[in-house]
Amino acid sequence: MTHAVRMLRSHPGTIQAEADALAAAIDACFDCAETSTACADASLAGGAVERLACSIRLCLDCVDVCDATGKLLSRHTGVNADVVRAQVRACIAACRACAEECERHAARLEHCRVTAEACRQCERACEDLLVGSPAPSS
Amino acid sequence: MTHAVRMLRSHPGTIQAEADALAAAIDACFDCAETSTACADASLAGGAVERLACSIRLCLDCVDVCDATGKLLSRHTGVNADVVRAQVRACIAACRACAEECERHAARLEHCRVTAEACRQCERACEDLLVGSPAPSS
Amino acid sequence: MTHAVRMLRSHPGTIQAEADALAAAIDACFDCAETSTACADASLAGGAVERLACSIRLCLDCVDVCDATGKLLSRHTGVNADVVRAQVRACIAACRACAEECERHAARLEHCRVTAEACRQCERACEDLLVGSPAPSS
Amino acid sequence: MTHAVRMLRSHPGTIQAEADALAAAIDACFDCAETSTACADASLAGGAVERLACSIRLCLDCVDVCDATGKLLSRHTGVNADVVRAQVRACIAACRACAEECERHAARLEHCRVTAEACRQCERACEDLLVGSPAPSS
Repeated sequence: MTHAVRMLRSHPGTIQAEADALAAAIDACFDCAETSTACADASLAGGAVERLACSIRLCLDCVDVCDATGKLLSRHTGVNADVVRAQVRACIAACRACAEECERHAARLEHCRVTAEACRQCERACEDLLVGSPAPSS
Repeated sequence: MTHAVRMLRSHPGTIQAEADALAAAIDACFDCAETSTACADASLAGGAVERLACSIRLCLDCVDVCDATGKLLSRHTGVNADVVRAQVRACIAACRACAEECERHAARLEHCRVTAEACRQCERACEDLLVGSPAPSS
Repeated sequence: MTHAVRMLRSHPGTIQAEADALAAAIDACFDCAETSTACADASLAGGAVERLACSIRLCLDCVDVCDATGKLLSRHTGVNADVVRAQVRACIAACRACAEECERHAARLEHCRVTAEACRQCERACEDLLVGSPAPSS
Repeated sequence: MTHAVRMLRSHPGTIQAEADALAAAIDACFDCAETSTACADASLAGGAVERLACSIRLCLDCVDVCDATGKLLSRHTGVNADVVRAQVRACIAACRACAEECERHAARLEHCRVTAEACRQCERACEDLLVGSPAPSS
């Protein structure tokens, strides 16, 4: 049981999502931010930086977008569903784009393989949240 | 002329947006993150924290979303237009929600008035970017 | 084995720290940022916000400082040891201050208890890194 | 008058620093984070990425450290002076390291010249804060 689950269970407010799916998405966002930070740096250290420039950029985007998404999903007070849903959609797009680029290098570069896995896991966890959420108000 | 404009002009790559609109949006995102950080804290310091809980939460969301958006817009290497557009849409939603809540308190609280202005400015700058951007690929 | 360990093992550069201690510190920083984000929100949702204002503030600081520290520790290219060491010291201070405040509320509030644990874990992991690192150059 | 000054003047709590110096430091931190984000990307786009790897890394560190510092300095509720001072010291170290590296490339690369200026401005603004702050309690 991660801290995310314990934090959700001890929250005094109302949680507007299924707790296990939400904890999985929060953990996946923070893990993807952590892994993508390391991937951008590993690409910078190897001998093929120019070929990996796109991958570095999409990793950096993934860090920023997953960070923001993980934090929004960790808050349950005064939720604005339109904001959360739009941010989760951006997270799905960022994880997908980063995964696709990392998968192109995964056969040669273990760090790209690990990052592609972390991105796909986050993409799926965010999609599961959207499927379970109520229809958008706008 | 802010640093944003000088950084855009000195970038060696191709910038896929009108430079003045882009610099305005980047500056607005970082300014809105800065102002919303201060607003959440000012609301926490006053004597009406429980009434301002929604405002604090939406300010914290605005910080995270504007931070991510400002950083994505500052990158021009290996742009994925779907990712950027989705994040800009999330930013518009976050700024609008935060502005609406802060405007409810603006008559009594100067810090909410300033933050509502910063949010509306960022919302408009992001909308201007979307209007000027090419049609989505998906 | 977390993604942090796999990312360290697959990094093409030289890692200037003992890998297990480093992976533990990176994981602890991201976990503490995640847990403190949730704690600030849980404190905002309960019926005692004014009494928890200090705790909310120190949690928000902890999020920002742990985020930055976790990211610096995830990079091994062109390390500047003075920068990393100063940031790790700031992280120890932020985690200690947040833990002390959360421990004051831990008997009544489970979310403060969990967060105090996460902060103490991060404080120790960062201290272990400093002990194992070479003497400062300045 | 930036939003930072208006936010400081409208804060309901006690500000434990000279307001103009504090506003200058907050603005400098957010500006340095913005400028360093753009510099890392510009270095990635040019034709000399491998030679600029150190610069990219120090810019990314600068973004994270300045972000955290700017946010801590924007909060005045329940300040822990040890935490703030340690983070300001880390910010001085990060800005100095990034400025020194960018200055090595400034003659050829305008984006490194602009970033070196932003880093030096932030370094000075943070040093001014430390000079004006009370003696550390530990």
